[in-house]
Amino acid sequence: MNNFEFYCPTRVLFGKGQIAELPRLIDKSKKILMTYGGGSIKKNGVYDQVKKALEGYNVLEFGGIEPNPKYETLMKAVEIVKREGVDFLLAVGGGSTLDGTKFIALASKYDGDDAYDAIMIRGEHPDSAVELADIITLPATGSEMNNGGVISRLATSEKLAFHNPNCFPKFSIIDPEVTYSLPVRQTINGIVDTFVHTMEFNCTYDVNSPLQDIWAMGILRTLIQEAPKVLANPEDYDARANIFWCATCGLNYWISVGVPQDWSTHMIGHELTAFYGIDHGQSLAIILPRLLRNQKVSKSQKLAKIAREVFKVDESVDLKAADIAIDKIEEFFNSIGMKTHLADYEIDPAEAAEKIRDRFAKRGVAFGEKGAITADVAYDVVLAS
Amino acid sequence: MNNFEFYCPTRVLFGKGQIAELPRLIDKSKKILMTYGGGSIKKNGVYDQVKKALEGYNVLEFGGIEPNPKYETLMKAVEIVKREGVDFLLAVGGGSTLDGTKFIALASKYDGDDAYDAIMIRGEHPDSAVELADIITLPATGSEMNNGGVISRLATSEKLAFHNPNCFPKFSIIDPEVTYSLPVRQTINGIVDTFVHTMEFNCTYDVNSPLQDIWAMGILRTLIQEAPKVLANPEDYDARANIFWCATCGLNYWISVGVPQDWSTHMIGHELTAFYGIDHGQSLAIILPRLLRNQKVSKSQKLAKIAREVFKVDESVDLKAADIAIDKIEEFFNSIGMKTHLADYEIDPAEAAEKIRDRFAKRGVAFGEKGAITADVAYDVVLAS
Repeated sequence: MNNFEFYCPTRVLFGKGQIAELPRLIDKSKKILMTYGGGSIKKNGVYDQVKKALEGYNVLEFGGIEPNPKYETLMKAVEIVKREGVDFLLAVGGGSTLDGTKFIALASKYDGDDAYDAIMIRGEHPDSAVELADIITLPATGSEMNNGGVISRLATSEKLAFHNPNCFPKFSIIDPEVTYSLPVRQTINGIVDTFVHTMEFNCTYDVNSPLQDIWAMGILRTLIQEAPKVLANPEDYDARANIFWCATCGLNYWISVGVPQDWSTHMIGHELTAFYGIDHGQSLAIILPRLLRNQKVSKSQKLAKIAREVFKVDESVDLKAADIAIDKIEEFFNSIGMKTHLADYEIDPAEAAEKIRDRFAKRGVAFGEKGAITADVAYDVVLAS
Repeated sequence: MNNFEFYCPTRVLFGKGQIAELPRLIDKSKKILMTYGGGSIKKNGVYDQVKKALEGYNVLEFGGIEPNPKYETLMKAVEIVKREGVDFLLAVGGGSTLDGTKFIALASKYDGDDAYDAIMIRGEHPDSAVELADIITLPATGSEMNNGGVISRLATSEKLAFHNPNCFPKFSIIDPEVTYSLPVRQTINGIVDTFVHTMEFNCTYDVNSPLQDIWAMGILRTLIQEAPKVLANPEDYDARANIFWCATCGLNYWISVGVPQDWSTHMIGHELTAFYGIDHGQSLAIILPRLLRNQKVSKSQKLAKIAREVFKVDESVDLKAADIAIDKIEEFFNSIGMKTHLADYEIDPAEAAEKIRDRFAKRGVAFGEKGAITADVAYDVVLAS
């Protein structure tokens, strides 16, 4: 196992009716900006639950944070925070609302010209952030229990990630009941997103970390077991709860301590979303199988473990087991209705591959646990997708 | 899955050489009291590493915290804290040193007559605690990543537990190398302690929490896999690291969120230690198999899962699988040199059973996930041990 440092001070309240606990968690003196997305929280009752719990509080609102939250949108909230003296951000929504709110928290403490360039490009972060917390309504990003976010900029078709130690939510409320009304597409996207986070964290090379491996594979097993249940019965509380907890644990770093990580599927997937607007989960389902196939030899130990532990495959030769694991993963995605090829979205692989190669080459980046995913390798992966 | 609330703000630094990070973690203005046990840290080099890292700091020392830390001893440290204006406690040692230091942190903020009666008996805790952190040198209690402790009082032969939200270590440094020199007995005790923590957290009844179940059983599997390695080669870094991380994860509540817990083996085991002075791990290894046998029907679902997932037993009838799991657990304890009967320590089961029944009856307590472990049931369990 590698050396590691772990820290996550976020308080998690999980289960039915937890939104009512808000008054215990936020000081009455706070001036709150409640942030949300396109308004689904007004349809599923979450907005009303929050407003009821916060009766008597000073609450402003900022709606309209879009999927793949845009810098241009978020800066409008930053204006409100600065103008109104907001000192508590309450994000209510999915990962995009949370990620966007983390950026708002940070950018509100930045006084220069272009917060995007400073924070996202140059990594020059302000020393503090506005206090933030969330009610997460979509099991997917795990943003509820980490300090990172992913932000897009319209002007440049960019989608980039940031982390900041002041961006941990003070608390996160996770009530699986609020996911009963999720559209099937979002449910599936979230399951795939969680699956791929877990793969990025674990499917690299073996450093003798049996507990982390079993835990990561436990998330994969649970997703495979519970996904058909929520698709068959969207109001199956236990299945919704198990999937939500997998999503949180898929990115709270509990499974990843001391283990080398990959993240190249995300890096390539982000570009597909930036160029073509396909959903984050959809982009991952397309790239992961091809990335794994491309890196099969390098990842064979872990893929073989996944074949045996997750898919109960009785194959003693690692490379053969690895092949089976990759097939089974794609089969799982397809089985829950997730497409896995660019052609399914009428995207030309050759065009996408060139665009992404050019961008990675220009940035001079290489991804993956061993830096093997250069611009040229990314080209091969996308071309095969 | 049940509703839950989770919070743990402890920063963990895990791995080789992490003690050198101390200056990054403690403000130079702090007046530190370094607490430790019987002096093993002076033999294994940890004391020297800490002193070197804290050169230039204002550091007082308090050694001599014994296994099953005694209230009478700890109050001497409280006197020093109050007299010298100590504002940072650095526990360096095993779980007893940590638990004791948590009590010191709390009792130093208590102004009444008898801190033990207030904190341990009446549950009247002060509003704050002295800031504390630790360098944990023994994989066992998991005290490094939770806010609880277990304290004994000589005058009354009592051993009781407490929890306080101000008693989370600010940071915990875990360097598996410092365990190379552990006596075999302590290594074995720690493995059994971790195993039983995990059982107490998970082996109750099924609430449809597949991820927590796999994770708990992952700890059991890892312990069973790694234990023979450290016993064969005490300087096997990876095995030491894996066992230490299991110990931390065995009591940081990551595996237990949303799942009913037991803890009756600990409650009975504490009494054996209080009355007869046997090691904590030894007491657990004696009680667990008999407690499980006594509660086999109630725990059959989980025991059967353990049989299949941990011991790879192919038995479809839950009660039969449960029987096998209990046998296998006792076999595992014996295989690493841990004895599992009172007679092995020349303790008369009939006498012990009566003493413990009387004490539980007098306190009017009943333990276990369903409150089934009454004084009379505890009598049966101990008598069979």
